[in-house]
Amino acid sequence: MNFASDNWAGAAPAVMSALTRHNNGHAPAYGSDPLTESVSNKFNELFEREVAVFFVATGTAANSLALAAYGKPGGAIFCHRDSHIQVDECNCPEFMTSGGKLVSVPGPSGKFDANGLIEAMYPFPDGIVHHGQVASVSISQATESGTVYTLEEIAAIKEVAASRSVPLHMDGARFANALVTLGCSPADMTWKSGVDVLSFGATKNGCWCAEAVVFFDLEAAKGFEYFRKRGGHLFSKSRFVAAQFDGYFNEDSWLDTAAHANAMALKLAEGIRTAGGRTAWPVEANELFPVLKRRQFEQLEAKGAMIYEWPAKDLPEGHAPQADEVCVRMVCSFATTEDDVAAFLNALSGTS
Amino acid sequence: MNFASDNWAGAAPAVMSALTRHNNGHAPAYGSDPLTESVSNKFNELFEREVAVFFVATGTAANSLALAAYGKPGGAIFCHRDSHIQVDECNCPEFMTSGGKLVSVPGPSGKFDANGLIEAMYPFPDGIVHHGQVASVSISQATESGTVYTLEEIAAIKEVAASRSVPLHMDGARFANALVTLGCSPADMTWKSGVDVLSFGATKNGCWCAEAVVFFDLEAAKGFEYFRKRGGHLFSKSRFVAAQFDGYFNEDSWLDTAAHANAMALKLAEGIRTAGGRTAWPVEANELFPVLKRRQFEQLEAKGAMIYEWPAKDLPEGHAPQADEVCVRMVCSFATTEDDVAAFLNALSGTS
Amino acid sequence: MNFASDNWAGAAPAVMSALTRHNNGHAPAYGSDPLTESVSNKFNELFEREVAVFFVATGTAANSLALAAYGKPGGAIFCHRDSHIQVDECNCPEFMTSGGKLVSVPGPSGKFDANGLIEAMYPFPDGIVHHGQVASVSISQATESGTVYTLEEIAAIKEVAASRSVPLHMDGARFANALVTLGCSPADMTWKSGVDVLSFGATKNGCWCAEAVVFFDLEAAKGFEYFRKRGGHLFSKSRFVAAQFDGYFNEDSWLDTAAHANAMALKLAEGIRTAGGRTAWPVEANELFPVLKRRQFEQLEAKGAMIYEWPAKDLPEGHAPQADEVCVRMVCSFATTEDDVAAFLNALSGTS
Amino acid sequence: MNFASDNWAGAAPAVMSALTRHNNGHAPAYGSDPLTESVSNKFNELFEREVAVFFVATGTAANSLALAAYGKPGGAIFCHRDSHIQVDECNCPEFMTSGGKLVSVPGPSGKFDANGLIEAMYPFPDGIVHHGQVASVSISQATESGTVYTLEEIAAIKEVAASRSVPLHMDGARFANALVTLGCSPADMTWKSGVDVLSFGATKNGCWCAEAVVFFDLEAAKGFEYFRKRGGHLFSKSRFVAAQFDGYFNEDSWLDTAAHANAMALKLAEGIRTAGGRTAWPVEANELFPVLKRRQFEQLEAKGAMIYEWPAKDLPEGHAPQADEVCVRMVCSFATTEDDVAAFLNALSGTS
Repeated sequence: MNFASDNWAGAAPAVMSALTRHNNGHAPAYGSDPLTESVSNKFNELFEREVAVFFVATGTAANSLALAAYGKPGGAIFCHRDSHIQVDECNCPEFMTSGGKLVSVPGPSGKFDANGLIEAMYPFPDGIVHHGQVASVSISQATESGTVYTLEEIAAIKEVAASRSVPLHMDGARFANALVTLGCSPADMTWKSGVDVLSFGATKNGCWCAEAVVFFDLEAAKGFEYFRKRGGHLFSKSRFVAAQFDGYFNEDSWLDTAAHANAMALKLAEGIRTAGGRTAWPVEANELFPVLKRRQFEQLEAKGAMIYEWPAKDLPEGHAPQADEVCVRMVCSFATTEDDVAAFLNALSGTS
Repeated sequence: MNFASDNWAGAAPAVMSALTRHNNGHAPAYGSDPLTESVSNKFNELFEREVAVFFVATGTAANSLALAAYGKPGGAIFCHRDSHIQVDECNCPEFMTSGGKLVSVPGPSGKFDANGLIEAMYPFPDGIVHHGQVASVSISQATESGTVYTLEEIAAIKEVAASRSVPLHMDGARFANALVTLGCSPADMTWKSGVDVLSFGATKNGCWCAEAVVFFDLEAAKGFEYFRKRGGHLFSKSRFVAAQFDGYFNEDSWLDTAAHANAMALKLAEGIRTAGGRTAWPVEANELFPVLKRRQFEQLEAKGAMIYEWPAKDLPEGHAPQADEVCVRMVCSFATTEDDVAAFLNALSGTS
Repeated sequence: MNFASDNWAGAAPAVMSALTRHNNGHAPAYGSDPLTESVSNKFNELFEREVAVFFVATGTAANSLALAAYGKPGGAIFCHRDSHIQVDECNCPEFMTSGGKLVSVPGPSGKFDANGLIEAMYPFPDGIVHHGQVASVSISQATESGTVYTLEEIAAIKEVAASRSVPLHMDGARFANALVTLGCSPADMTWKSGVDVLSFGATKNGCWCAEAVVFFDLEAAKGFEYFRKRGGHLFSKSRFVAAQFDGYFNEDSWLDTAAHANAMALKLAEGIRTAGGRTAWPVEANELFPVLKRRQFEQLEAKGAMIYEWPAKDLPEGHAPQADEVCVRMVCSFATTEDDVAAFLNALSGTS
Repeated sequence: MNFASDNWAGAAPAVMSALTRHNNGHAPAYGSDPLTESVSNKFNELFEREVAVFFVATGTAANSLALAAYGKPGGAIFCHRDSHIQVDECNCPEFMTSGGKLVSVPGPSGKFDANGLIEAMYPFPDGIVHHGQVASVSISQATESGTVYTLEEIAAIKEVAASRSVPLHMDGARFANALVTLGCSPADMTWKSGVDVLSFGATKNGCWCAEAVVFFDLEAAKGFEYFRKRGGHLFSKSRFVAAQFDGYFNEDSWLDTAAHANAMALKLAEGIRTAGGRTAWPVEANELFPVLKRRQFEQLEAKGAMIYEWPAKDLPEGHAPQADEVCVRMVCSFATTEDDVAAFLNALSGTS
């Protein structure tokens, strides 16, 4: 019953076997090997156009370096109040952008909308040097609240970004989970909806360590290799990342693992609802945030459920925890089994 | 006949099998897993004292973050003119230290000595704000010229560093190769000789991606986790690094791979000497820098030898390339075979 | 009728004449001149203890460098939502701290209190690397809303800062204005209430360019000269700043100019109240923020009043502008005359 | 007999009186005042074309911010080994460029030439990410050795810079001194010879604090105001700088002060030569570097001559100090009198 996080899992079989398979012979270092080239082409195929792909060590690095590529002195980066870049990256975005300011945009369910963005940008008119300058907009897909932006929502946000001539970045730490939810193409969910640069995360969905910055804006990608290297993020044996991606994409295993994780999350949510419970936000990817009696939470923990209390704020009426309640986070991954789900729901039904 | 670089190899069998072995079940992310703890203890054993170990993505990151931990505004970092941090890290040290200046210290064979360091520090007296302030000293062991500092040489450099109250950093991208050459203990080659912080590299010697910053100065290690995270270098599935180290250290496989690589380099050097050739510098680890007739170099390349021309400068008399000569770099690794060596020497003997 | 800003005035007579008076002969550069020493001693007297004083070019530099002296990787700097460092310094604090994050603390009338600070610090527990670390707390005295913290309020904020082992910084761009309001000593308003480092502003109150960072925490002041120089803020002919401070402090002229500016602001506020108007916040220093009918505002502008619309948000009930109203900012300085005030009030009475 | 530095003088009469003259009434802050506009136009006239002018606090800031405007990740900035940016700015250039590397170019008499630059750029080929990328070239005019580049020398350096598509920066801390030596126009010495951005220093030549970044490359100037503000270098009462420039340029007073300083330096040099002495480098501006017997140096000091020992290195044969000799720096300014010169030469003749 381990629902602690999707990065508590190891590597999925397809990924691990690819890593083993490609561990032979010599290959040029620093990403100039044939396997990296082949994986890069796979990204082109996947996105139905030419893209520029750069492997980096972590999702935090992917986000921060992508934003650095669009950095400006006094730059304001607009993101959700609860976004990973704002609350979970120890100022890596601020550091990599040489002092960018992350401006929080509020919004329900981990998402902000075009109007919220317009309002947040209001104190940053063009040409007022004291206030700095609008630099970029970042959304997480899926969000940190387990929800997913629709294509229309993304496009509307893009329109606001474009009206200020700044790019739209997508933190895709859980890209695959969002994608299978929307059932659209990778192209639809990114550049066709206005995304300029994407942090393509594969680690949470079954890799050991496979993160990439994907530019649709090829002009901005020029020189990005220097940002990456300056951050210490150019792997020497870069093919070990390429190998993981090779296994990840092979026979669409990445979509299978994501679909499985999402299905497990939905099943949990349904079971909780059936048991009379609720979740803080809609369950649209592989995370769910049930609101439990604190008593239940403690009983579940005692029974071995690995779940964490979550500081959910500003929940809508009818969703917010009451005095005796607590919001918890549960995350599913490729490694979550039907048995885990059943065991949890069984344990839940035994609580009182 | 691939002598291009030690990072052209994949992962050594002991490492790859450990990675597979530890790929099961859930484990806490971000380095709080039991395997990481066990590997950290292994580091303590290895160094015969308590150390603070932090995994990072690359050798460049290890060096730059270690130096950042000792950063000062206007800080001067003293290193060899040909050191990796000075010429091969795209200003990552300068960036991570928020504008440090790498001051080149000259010296033959990739090494500088105490006197050279004293002279280089001369323009940086204490308290003259215009010139900045002495911040740290860094040596590479083994060096970028394939040579190795003796323990006495390290201690003498340390003495100079200590006289200015700054730490001694060791870039150990090829730590194992130097260690087997000296035949001393890891403790001897580091803190017992005055090293305060070490970039412990394992990637070149048989891992996919296993680099660690090791602090002997436990006080300075406090807060280092924030430097690492701010640089985007905290792995989520951190156990994949721990697993590699587990295999690396298991049954001293790391010493075997390093000893093998060194032996191959020596055999090449001897063969070259036998054939009437010479190397630019003594061969003391797994790299050698033969000086060949340009004609020979071209013939060797044509026969499939993967070797690179090297911009060797300021070589001592009798070593420097003549007009028709060229210096090349050759690197051996765990994956270099006796056959590779024999094939190369055979090819060399066929040149004219 | 120029109430645009206190930095639209020139230099006060006492300051200008001191600048002229000290413009003779040679004097050592970079702050090692006798006049700088004498002014530094004056600061010691003023604060009734030894302090460390550093001149810098601007208030923005003073704030940002002071915070940089206490910088940490992933550092969170707590300040009021409307503070100058948060909204008017183009990320200079973020840049000088190598990526600090300015965390907004809400609170009425430009002030936050101890409870607000505790709540804002809540998401930054010690030891959770993802969230970064608490680095410092900053208050403005007088505030950007023209209000003044009481000594008790400062001490309560300090207590929270101290509970997290971080320093309290005071942005004293309008230090003198606050001081004459409280009627206490400079020592009372600073280190005796827990302030560790102060941006001592004199420019707005009658200098051309005289800003200083004043450390009460002498330990933290060590090495600060390197921060200043690295920021390009060490003046060569530093005595031109010292000369201004000499005139500024001479015969307490600085208290006179501040008292005058405050009095003018109060007179304006009273006149506005008499005329049936109101201000957004209490008038406690040299700034006032009247809420006017938009019609009145336009008529006043047409009559030559230099006043600016102000984006006052979250005003308490009874204070917030109605649909046909607008909040404006008016600032008084040493150069504001009784005639200016009378003319404005007269113009106001003529509006409808 | 004060020859310590040109920044030991105060403000020249023309500058001081302008500062007094413009100290009346209100004027918009932050550089939007009419006087700043008028001075900016004066710069246009002076350079015979449209330029973009930005006032900053110090020469160090001017240099560092100008280079920051052309910063690149992993950027290499080429400058003379003895240049102010390399040895006297406490890493401000490195900091403002977020980790730029200042690459020293050697060359006699404080100057480097096109060939030296080509050689220094050799290790930085395009597209090799490890080595970083060529970012800019900087020369000092006049140099830190008191010499002056000819227009042909500047143009030749520019050609090399242009061949790598990077700009040429000129550190004009002693711009006026070089200008009167060459007897050419400001346009000739800058953009007509290929300079893209200039640090225009006026402080040493008679101002209190008047430094400007002047862009001839108007495209690069866009957005520069954000670099300046982010560095804390936007003055609020900016007109106090404009006023100084107004006096500086009025009736060409700046050329008079520079010509005077240069003449005094030449007279000193001639007197020294007449007395059988020599200088380390040609005397082409307002600085001279006599090589004296140490005995003489001590006697001169004892007689009250303010002169400093100078670490002159790599002097050509016949110029370098012998064992009993010492190189000293002497600097003249507008405030150096004929009497000072006579007194010094008289004192020198009395030494033995």
